[in-house]
Amino acid sequence: MSMNFKRIIHLLGALLIIIALSMTPSLLVSILYKEYECTKAFLITIGICLLMGVLFNRRNNPSLSSIRMRDGFLIVTGSWLFASLFGAVPFVLSGAISNPINAFFETCSGFSTTGASILTDIEALPVSMLFWRSFTHWLGGMGIVVFAMALLPKLGISGQLLAVAEMPAPTLDKLTPRFSDTAKSLYKMYIFITVLETVLLSLGGLTIIDALIHTFGTVGTGGFSSHAESIAYFNSYYVQWVITIFMIISGTNFNLFYISIKNGIKRMFGDEEFKLYISIIAIFTLLITLDLALTANETNLFGALTVSAFQVSSIITTTGYASTDFDLWPTFAKMLLFTLMFIGASSSSTGGGVKVIRILVSFKLILRGFALKTHENRIVNIKVNGKQVASETISNIANFIFFYILLLFVGTFIIAFDNFDVVTSFTSVIACLGNIGPGFSLVGPTMNYSIFSGFSKLVLSFLMIAGRLELFTFFILFSRYYRDSNRA
Amino acid sequence: MSMNFKRIIHLLGALLIIIALSMTPSLLVSILYKEYECTKAFLITIGICLLMGVLFNRRNNPSLSSIRMRDGFLIVTGSWLFASLFGAVPFVLSGAISNPINAFFETCSGFSTTGASILTDIEALPVSMLFWRSFTHWLGGMGIVVFAMALLPKLGISGQLLAVAEMPAPTLDKLTPRFSDTAKSLYKMYIFITVLETVLLSLGGLTIIDALIHTFGTVGTGGFSSHAESIAYFNSYYVQWVITIFMIISGTNFNLFYISIKNGIKRMFGDEEFKLYISIIAIFTLLITLDLALTANETNLFGALTVSAFQVSSIITTTGYASTDFDLWPTFAKMLLFTLMFIGASSSSTGGGVKVIRILVSFKLILRGFALKTHENRIVNIKVNGKQVASETISNIANFIFFYILLLFVGTFIIAFDNFDVVTSFTSVIACLGNIGPGFSLVGPTMNYSIFSGFSKLVLSFLMIAGRLELFTFFILFSRYYRDSNRA
Repeated sequence: MSMNFKRIIHLLGALLIIIALSMTPSLLVSILYKEYECTKAFLITIGICLLMGVLFNRRNNPSLSSIRMRDGFLIVTGSWLFASLFGAVPFVLSGAISNPINAFFETCSGFSTTGASILTDIEALPVSMLFWRSFTHWLGGMGIVVFAMALLPKLGISGQLLAVAEMPAPTLDKLTPRFSDTAKSLYKMYIFITVLETVLLSLGGLTIIDALIHTFGTVGTGGFSSHAESIAYFNSYYVQWVITIFMIISGTNFNLFYISIKNGIKRMFGDEEFKLYISIIAIFTLLITLDLALTANETNLFGALTVSAFQVSSIITTTGYASTDFDLWPTFAKMLLFTLMFIGASSSSTGGGVKVIRILVSFKLILRGFALKTHENRIVNIKVNGKQVASETISNIANFIFFYILLLFVGTFIIAFDNFDVVTSFTSVIACLGNIGPGFSLVGPTMNYSIFSGFSKLVLSFLMIAGRLELFTFFILFSRYYRDSNRA
Repeated sequence: MSMNFKRIIHLLGALLIIIALSMTPSLLVSILYKEYECTKAFLITIGICLLMGVLFNRRNNPSLSSIRMRDGFLIVTGSWLFASLFGAVPFVLSGAISNPINAFFETCSGFSTTGASILTDIEALPVSMLFWRSFTHWLGGMGIVVFAMALLPKLGISGQLLAVAEMPAPTLDKLTPRFSDTAKSLYKMYIFITVLETVLLSLGGLTIIDALIHTFGTVGTGGFSSHAESIAYFNSYYVQWVITIFMIISGTNFNLFYISIKNGIKRMFGDEEFKLYISIIAIFTLLITLDLALTANETNLFGALTVSAFQVSSIITTTGYASTDFDLWPTFAKMLLFTLMFIGASSSSTGGGVKVIRILVSFKLILRGFALKTHENRIVNIKVNGKQVASETISNIANFIFFYILLLFVGTFIIAFDNFDVVTSFTSVIACLGNIGPGFSLVGPTMNYSIFSGFSKLVLSFLMIAGRLELFTFFILFSRYYRDSNRA
């Protein structure tokens, strides 16, 4: 067994211990609610994870100073797959989701913060299982690996190399040289936001469990709810606006909060990605409100504004909560939501999708195209926040977007074998790859993913993880280039 | 009046004379078929065009040696709009298409080789009008401007600068230094192919008029038929295969034929774009045949292969003929066709869409992404046909694709106001921007575009022209950069 393989096993051992620990809140909930089948399921799973984790981790810690890039990819992707596999065990053992493929899908959907569900009767699930299901959003939100990185250094493992593979989207600002410190400060903010939203939702009349579940779903930009009607269940403007604001916060580049705390809020509103992100939300909300008022003859304007703001924020941040059945909206409003599914949240947020920064650079590239065609020999640079974007970064962004589109098509080809309509097939893939959750038609906000074949569910599960890991981290493991570098 | 404006008026005058001349075959058909209303309509239009043309062109020819780039854009776009405006006049005057917006849509669709129709009863049209409608495909196919360029030099006008704006897609091979010669030899091939297909279709039992109409639709990759059922009307394998082969030829880079004649056919099969183009057709045909056999339980395998090959070739070349109602196909087959709508034909062919060469480079960009992520500091170049692709070309391609996607979305937003379903709205835009013709759902192969509002029809008309002119040539006229360079 090679040194590298030993190192990876060692790390996965640590991960299993973390998974075991992360199940203890759910274990407590199951005891509190006297759901003894669930208690048993959690205890067994925790036992297996701890046992395997200690076994893997017990091997004498090999020299860990030189984790290679390619191992980084394997560790990151392996972590998400392991977490989803072991995270699914309590669902199966308790009988809450007895089909293992369904349980795996649901857990992938949780950890990847997608929020797509195969459950046909959500409210029938035990409370502790609903809690665990949503808690995976919270864990996945900040990235189970970033999470691990705040802890792993204590095990003597440097996380810097993992960060390259894990970092959500191109970052144009270098934050702090010591990654572990950054992870810690990001986590403090994450916990602060979590506590704040839980308190605000409780004040809105939600039970503490409902407040926690919907906070996990919001800050992780996941979208699992404990109610079949999603947020529409609460029938409250206050709850909708609280969740809207926290979705917008969670879809913002977390580094901006960090910088704003250090250098003042002005810095935040000077950021071009943030400005575009907020502008898109504002403009799309306005357009949908108008469409609902004019086309759908909605007379309650504040109500229309509320659901529009909620739904726009929910889709752009890739959360996927619904406060109304937007599949019944006029075509114009639906097309705007469809566009938001492509755009996605800000870089370095908990959201998914293509990311606003990439859309911003693409726009600038189009404008540069016009400039180049009229001023033939003049060189036109693309700048973001006053800094020139390197041509390699632009090429990476084009790369990513092309690969994203390719995956959308190839994914839909595979899903199309189930022979549902084109809209269902296409939007199920974009909703999973973009970590959104609901799509349109048969995967609309009031529907679920139970209709698909087991094979399609597995494909969609992998797409969720691929989307969460910014595509390349996941697919590089299958590429010729990975095997080549393996030999090197 | 500036020198430039005079120059442009002079050129448009020449264009009007060409339009007048190009209507004479249709005039003869109307006399032959004793459609006197149509004869009158053509005579009046020819009269107007000749009068205006001579008036415009009479002004003493200003120095034409230095047509500026920006004037090139205006001339090219103006040519297509003028041709579509004046080409629509016979339809209105004869009463064949009395609504001017509908007539403009139909003529834009003709000249841009789209083939989308607002006609609800095609067979009710006079033969000479059907002939003129399809003849616009033939004219548009090779580009009315390339056409003009083979003639304009005789008026002392160099076409080189126009070519930059008109050239379909990035060309990686430089052909001949003298553009007018190239245009002439391309036109000879175009006429040769036209004659050949007309003869072959006549041998298949088509009337000479039907043979001509469907040849114009094929070689121009247009798609207008004289029958509501399109090619399904003929119910003949022979006719389907003849049209399939000629669609594939018309979707091939015409320069390759030129090079093959000079340097042997091997050169053609060494071209990477051609290889990918042929491979896509072969693989997609095979997959759809299998899908029809397995999912749709089609037992006639040769029949399934025939319609698959026909439909794949029709969509990838952006012709848009139908030999069956593919909107009724299984989702997998429909998704494959949907993908072909994005891809489009080869560069420097008569077809539209994104073009195979751009798809090829995008693929290579994705592969390079994998290579770069594993071999950090190694520079990986993208090569096509053994030659390195300049980074500026790659950036242009990314540019084009992003702009294409942006137009798809923005176009659909506008069309969505008519509030038809999402599939209708989205595929009508892609079918017009990509110069295809039919889409899915309410714009499927057995349907037509009469359902849309006048405003939507105008938007779709402009998208057809924009798509035909490779986007930038059209939209640059509205951009800040154009106005800036105007002042310079």
